[in-house]
Amino acid sequence: MTVKQLSIPELADACLELGVPGVGLWREPVRSHGVEATAKLVREAGLTVTTLCRGGFLTATDPAERVAALADNRRAVEEAAALGTEVLVLVSGGLPAGSRDLGAARERIADALAELGPYAEQHGVRLAIEPLHPMFAADRCVVSTLTQALDLAERFPAHQVGVTVDTYHIWWDDQAPAQIARAGAGGRIHTFQLADWTTPLPAGVLNGRGQIGDGAIDMREWRGYVEAAGYTGPIEVELFNDALWARNGREVLAETAERFLTHAA
Amino acid sequence: MTVKQLSIPELADACLELGVPGVGLWREPVRSHGVEATAKLVREAGLTVTTLCRGGFLTATDPAERVAALADNRRAVEEAAALGTEVLVLVSGGLPAGSRDLGAARERIADALAELGPYAEQHGVRLAIEPLHPMFAADRCVVSTLTQALDLAERFPAHQVGVTVDTYHIWWDDQAPAQIARAGAGGRIHTFQLADWTTPLPAGVLNGRGQIGDGAIDMREWRGYVEAAGYTGPIEVELFNDALWARNGREVLAETAERFLTHAA
Repeated sequence: MTVKQLSIPELADACLELGVPGVGLWREPVRSHGVEATAKLVREAGLTVTTLCRGGFLTATDPAERVAALADNRRAVEEAAALGTEVLVLVSGGLPAGSRDLGAARERIADALAELGPYAEQHGVRLAIEPLHPMFAADRCVVSTLTQALDLAERFPAHQVGVTVDTYHIWWDDQAPAQIARAGAGGRIHTFQLADWTTPLPAGVLNGRGQIGDGAIDMREWRGYVEAAGYTGPIEVELFNDALWARNGREVLAETAERFLTHAA
Repeated sequence: MTVKQLSIPELADACLELGVPGVGLWREPVRSHGVEATAKLVREAGLTVTTLCRGGFLTATDPAERVAALADNRRAVEEAAALGTEVLVLVSGGLPAGSRDLGAARERIADALAELGPYAEQHGVRLAIEPLHPMFAADRCVVSTLTQALDLAERFPAHQVGVTVDTYHIWWDDQAPAQIARAGAGGRIHTFQLADWTTPLPAGVLNGRGQIGDGAIDMREWRGYVEAAGYTGPIEVELFNDALWARNGREVLAETAERFLTHAA
């Protein structure tokens, strides 16, 4: 998503050129290129697919919407398996229109995980609940902290449900380091993502994630927390940023790799 | 601030007409009208000044900036006393330019409170640390949760330092109800403010606080928490909202009073 201006073949080519060994993919471009075609392409390029983003949006109250959401998440599990990644990232969903009940919405996520967890396990896929920054609680994700994500995940086996640790969403939370330790002790850090916090935020606040090193987050500090918690998996950089998307994708990927080495390695 | 388009005399007049018994004031309009003149006007109108907003911005590392911030906060305490309000709201301040150390910034707030708490007490004023929504952690307020605000406040006597409970900033936090109980048990709920959460957020995210009833927050639920915690003080409605500011101030005040009765009374 950091370089969504690149097609899947361009992305694979740029990763190989820069020595980037793995890539997290999003469902929309994968489906545009074709799931099997993408799987073949990345396999032949020797790239690891670190995660598939995203399933989720599991908070609907309407029965038909709920059935559709579960079916879509089962398809996402199948796509993850086809791509050869073990991790499907979940963005849980916001409040249904007119609702003010965050607690009930969180319970509906748990209900959905009880169905999706075993389905994912059958496909060799782990679900990674991603707490999103509290500014998304109403319209995108009612799971706002690692504490809440782990409270949900721990109702299920770790090989079914864990969490996504993304610096952008949790950097402000002084309880997050202890929660990373909790997640690590339970084998539930299913992926680790970097993005920086820059201000001012853009309208809608979705596409203002800062390039590594441009903002307020100490990347090495957070990398230290996940590694102290036993995490040895890939580190993803996931930037939603209109300014980066407007630039040459290969340049942005090269810059991102360089920033990673400077600020996180 | 909800109706900043009204002058101080217009505000007092509109409050009297609508039967609004108290008003939280901001320093800038008070200083424009004159502190003593404002004090006289609201006293003669029979209005209670519920709080003065705002002191704070106590996170600077530069010695000269720090001295200036403390001096400005002492003036804010004096202005609160002159206006006859017992409560000065504090917005703590963000990260200094180039800093990534939230913990150190929070400690500098504690250092400042050790100086300002006794000064406020001498003037019959209590300081009310306001946790701001985590989306403001970098540029406005490194205190993002009631938990953090109370961790700071409890280093000092409750008659010196307490907290501001504002629905807009804490509604997403499932730990906030327990923290309200903690604050109430310690006599540290120094004011209670309402604003609703509406999306999409505007650029800069400062001026998008929703009119009561327009958003995702159950006002009666939060009023219930503070009252169960023993709070019997005033309830303020504080909306920063460009659309409301563009309208007739008396109409907005009347609408706000009506929304309060419908959604919070």
